[in-house]
Amino acid sequence: DPKLKVFTCNANRQLAKEIAEHIGVPLGNAEAVRFSDGECQIKLNESVRGCDVFVIQPTCAPVNEHLMELLVMVDALKRASAKSINVVIPYYGYARQDRKARARDPITAKLVANLIETAGAHRVITMDLHATQIQGFFDIPVDHLLGVPILGKYFAEKGLQDIVVVSPDHGGVTRARRLAERLEAPIAIIDKRRPEPNVAEVMNIVGNIEGKTAIIIDDIIDTAGTITLAANALVEAGARDVYACCTHPVLSGPAIQRINDSKISELVVTNTIPLSQDRMIDKIKVLSVAPIIGEAIIRVHEELSVSKLFD
Amino acid sequence: DPKLKVFTCNANRQLAKEIAEHIGVPLGNAEAVRFSDGECQIKLNESVRGCDVFVIQPTCAPVNEHLMELLVMVDALKRASAKSINVVIPYYGYARQDRKARARDPITAKLVANLIETAGAHRVITMDLHATQIQGFFDIPVDHLLGVPILGKYFAEKGLQDIVVVSPDHGGVTRARRLAERLEAPIAIIDKRRPEPNVAEVMNIVGNIEGKTAIIIDDIIDTAGTITLAANALVEAGARDVYACCTHPVLSGPAIQRINDSKISELVVTNTIPLSQDRMIDKIKVLSVAPIIGEAIIRVHEELSVSKLFD
Ligand SMILES: Nc1ncnc2c1ncn2[C@@H]1O[C@H](COP(=O)(O)O)[C@@H](O)[C@H]1O
Ligand SMILES: Nc1ncnc2c1ncn2[C@@H]1O[C@H](COP(=O)(O)O)[C@@H](O)[C@H]1O
Repeated sequence: DPKLKVFTCNANRQLAKEIAEHIGVPLGNAEAVRFSDGECQIKLNESVRGCDVFVIQPTCAPVNEHLMELLVMVDALKRASAKSINVVIPYYGYARQDRKARARDPITAKLVANLIETAGAHRVITMDLHATQIQGFFDIPVDHLLGVPILGKYFAEKGLQDIVVVSPDHGGVTRARRLAERLEAPIAIIDKRRPEPNVAEVMNIVGNIEGKTAIIIDDIIDTAGTITLAANALVEAGARDVYACCTHPVLSGPAIQRINDSKISELVVTNTIPLSQDRMIDKIKVLSVAPIIGEAIIRVHEELSVSKLFD
Repeated sequence: DPKLKVFTCNANRQLAKEIAEHIGVPLGNAEAVRFSDGECQIKLNESVRGCDVFVIQPTCAPVNEHLMELLVMVDALKRASAKSINVVIPYYGYARQDRKARARDPITAKLVANLIETAGAHRVITMDLHATQIQGFFDIPVDHLLGVPILGKYFAEKGLQDIVVVSPDHGGVTRARRLAERLEAPIAIIDKRRPEPNVAEVMNIVGNIEGKTAIIIDDIIDTAGTITLAANALVEAGARDVYACCTHPVLSGPAIQRINDSKISELVVTNTIPLSQDRMIDKIKVLSVAPIIGEAIIRVHEELSVSKLFD
């Protein structure tokens, strides 16, 4: 059997360690450092000849640094004769640039898919893509994992009463339904307009939330404009309590301030993106995706179906 | 005739302006900005449909930011139906990772070539590649311009007497010969050993430098270890005066301090890489490559041979 090896660069070393532990292998001996002028240097300090290699690297901020580390690592693994190169991108950066929203827009999510293939990756494992269509941007197999089971389990065990799961926009209704099914709860939808990127405006609420415990779910929380306005609108409209959750806590710019100032009781996220110390506020609860990614890697290595993970 | 348009991102807007002026076209209306989370956003504010587009972007530090801006710009131009996309990379970042110097090294210069082609570039114009073999890493046409004519002209007009052109290492002898021919001067070579990257050690001098005005030439000056040790060794060995020159002033880390403290009278560089204010010291003279790049663009657009530029 070809040997399974797990490597990482700098984007989320802690998650990579947890995944390697889950699988029961040591984290491979490799480093992504910088030359004096800032160019990325990959030091691959052990043989990968004939191995099935998994590289764990979310392309979170600084996205261009982390993407380039990943590409150079894949190049090094390819030239070092790895049998298969499987890139594990728990958070896929640039996923929101997934279509020409305006004339002459780039489609950077597709560009990134092409770059990863060009570097030499054979397979991608990722989680909660902003648009599931991004799977089709690749010509190599993509395993798409979901955060909902992890988030759902947490809320189920919390024993909340009278739940309503809320989608903060029309695009997120499918995701909200998935969580609602796990919690045997109804859904509601926030009908909002967004005038510009990173600026959100909340409109009215479709569905019954009066006196209920609302759980807002999104894939990404970035500047937290959408989710905090949604939370406040829910409380004003009579929700008893508001929770929020997402898979990918980007939390850039004013996000932490907004969450602190908002009516959100607790924000539940996963560790696809590491939270810097200054973003580790009391209101935020972090759940680990290491078990689900670890299982996916074991199944891919054994050539079993990853989708069975969600039965 | 398809229209020629010149665009730039953020790496060297000043140079792009000078090039556009030389050609006699306005700089195209486009911006490379950042979303709140640091993702690169390209705003292409004018039509490029059917145009021959030239994008000026050296991949100098921060290299990964500038490379990604270039790739996303090319993607946007491609999807906006540009007739041809010509990338002008006066300084080609990652050029020093051009071979497997150690086991399991990546060959990032080749990876970058593949990324640029994948994004959709049709042609590359670049200057003084660290290894001219990098031209062969591309499957699209590469026009390779030289800094020697610009540097040579400057030194010739300076009217220095009794010149010897010095190569700081064996790899640079061809470049030193080219400059020496233009100045009708002999050459000398520094025989050095380099124990580690960014650490240089000077050995003895091959050739006669006694009482002469030495001009050391290199392609890149990065941490300036090599060049300053070479300069000091030349003075100790009896050179009357020492000048240094290069095409690409990377000047990272201790470079400015070392140059200031060295026996170098003047360091002559080009503007392929912009010098930040703190690196603009009196000893450094900057020459513009805008005329030569401008001419190359005009010739490429008219489908004439660029190599005629060097006759
Ligand atoms: N990193 C980013 N931060 C904020 N907005 C973005 C980012 N990337 C893309 N966008 C914009 O987000 C919109 C797509 O988001 P959505 O409508 O939620 O799919 C488009 O208008 C994009 O221009
Ligand atoms: N950005 C960089 N800064 C310093 N050294 C580098 C850089 N990129 C590559 N190298 C190293 O430089 C050496 C190649 O330089 P050279 O021998 O001058 O062609 C190799 O050992 C590379 O690992």
